[in-house]
Amino acid sequence: MQPIETRLRVRYAETDQMGIVYYANYFIWMEVGRVEFCRLSGIRYRDVEADGFLLAVAESNCRYLAPARYDDEVVIATTLGDPSPRMPRFDYVIRDAATGRKLAEGFTKHIWCGPDLRPRKLPEKYWVNFGIERAKSN
Amino acid sequence: MQPIETRLRVRYAETDQMGIVYYANYFIWMEVGRVEFCRLSGIRYRDVEADGFLLAVAESNCRYLAPARYDDEVVIATTLGDPSPRMPRFDYVIRDAATGRKLAEGFTKHIWCGPDLRPRKLPEKYWVNFGIERAKSN
Amino acid sequence: MQPIETRLRVRYAETDQMGIVYYANYFIWMEVGRVEFCRLSGIRYRDVEADGFLLAVAESNCRYLAPARYDDEVVIATTLGDPSPRMPRFDYVIRDAATGRKLAEGFTKHIWCGPDLRPRKLPEKYWVNFGIERAKSN
Amino acid sequence: MQPIETRLRVRYAETDQMGIVYYANYFIWMEVGRVEFCRLSGIRYRDVEADGFLLAVAESNCRYLAPARYDDEVVIATTLGDPSPRMPRFDYVIRDAATGRKLAEGFTKHIWCGPDLRPRKLPEKYWVNFGIERAKSN
Repeated sequence: MQPIETRLRVRYAETDQMGIVYYANYFIWMEVGRVEFCRLSGIRYRDVEADGFLLAVAESNCRYLAPARYDDEVVIATTLGDPSPRMPRFDYVIRDAATGRKLAEGFTKHIWCGPDLRPRKLPEKYWVNFGIERAKSN
Repeated sequence: MQPIETRLRVRYAETDQMGIVYYANYFIWMEVGRVEFCRLSGIRYRDVEADGFLLAVAESNCRYLAPARYDDEVVIATTLGDPSPRMPRFDYVIRDAATGRKLAEGFTKHIWCGPDLRPRKLPEKYWVNFGIERAKSN
Repeated sequence: MQPIETRLRVRYAETDQMGIVYYANYFIWMEVGRVEFCRLSGIRYRDVEADGFLLAVAESNCRYLAPARYDDEVVIATTLGDPSPRMPRFDYVIRDAATGRKLAEGFTKHIWCGPDLRPRKLPEKYWVNFGIERAKSN
Repeated sequence: MQPIETRLRVRYAETDQMGIVYYANYFIWMEVGRVEFCRLSGIRYRDVEADGFLLAVAESNCRYLAPARYDDEVVIATTLGDPSPRMPRFDYVIRDAATGRKLAEGFTKHIWCGPDLRPRKLPEKYWVNFGIERAKSN
């Protein structure tokens, strides 16, 4: 499975007084990467959610290697590290678009839930979009 | 009607690379002021919302007089400038807690809506909490 | 002067539990519009800032006409409503990209400042980028 | 070393359309916990920063156990898990204040840096505030 690349430009709002991007904002970028991952795999995440399946976050992690700065263009490479109809994991590498320098890497682990936020296995009709093969379905 | 005062400490996340609080964050503080206004008038806004009445924002305005900085304590004085069961307006004055210096002032105009986000007049049982007198009920 | 159009897609992080975009986030979008305005007028705002001129915000205003929702694409049309080397004003119209429906409109008034956040007139070398004519220079 | 407890109330801005707190915001709360940790250990982090020592983030992690919701009061218990004048680690447990239920736990690893964001060992005068003993000074 190839990584899906998403580009965005660092907003002023995303910086802090250290003059670099505030650390929590990388997780917002990962979310942008996840959504584009879904879109490019043929589905809009919002349609999945409207259908009653929410991708709740169970764990998030980021390692910061070099600071991103205001107005930089960054590239988020998103991979579905662990396809699963129950607990998928996405992996991310964030690079400076101009130089290719790696700025951060991380992952998010998820649980597919229903609207009541209780675990709910993703139905087969969506498996192709989330890289799930029949053999891995449990 | 007396202003309701709410205190908060400026978070690092709220600053930007100019070394001061990013301008959009004052609107988050106004929301914190509104919620405390409700609480001190005897009601939790979340209970009103659970009851099917949402306070959608129709207009927001802020004038910035002096910068707020990281770790400063600020006081938000919230007044219900225009009580109305349809389109209330809240007014805010934000001061530095240590010096009393006025940092910003602004307002938010609202529309009471139902869960479908269509206008929905606030029922009489809530009027006392939102400073509405019978004569102003239309 | 033509409006500069910037497109962006609504992030999940930008929604709130009302199921629509939280009202403060429109001001972040206006900032994205301002930055693109600068870029398309031939200058990067970050270079102006590195040169010692900061565009501090003096007032901000937004009227909300229809809600923006997660994953919608929105277009921000930014105009320099009042070019001035001291106190410029930007105007914004935010539309749904798919339908053209107007979602919000607003403005931001600014003061050009030095790194000490005291007012500092923008020098002539930047006037062409900020639509300032000689006659309006005071 | 006892955990330092900080209380805050969940803001509407911190929720997303899933009706719960957006996952990136827990890292903002951890920052609030860190700052209070410093304050209660006898120092203001902003003074340390003004003195030329920045606590850059090298890694962040959060495990989400139960959702926090709008208007809930949460308690952040912050511990200095690994005192170090070079690469300290803070640990956090976030609980619902009303029920004591654990909502999330996580950590942040840091590097003390100078204003140029290059590693810079924290000087001895601050060690007592950051729980560093002489023996662990390298």
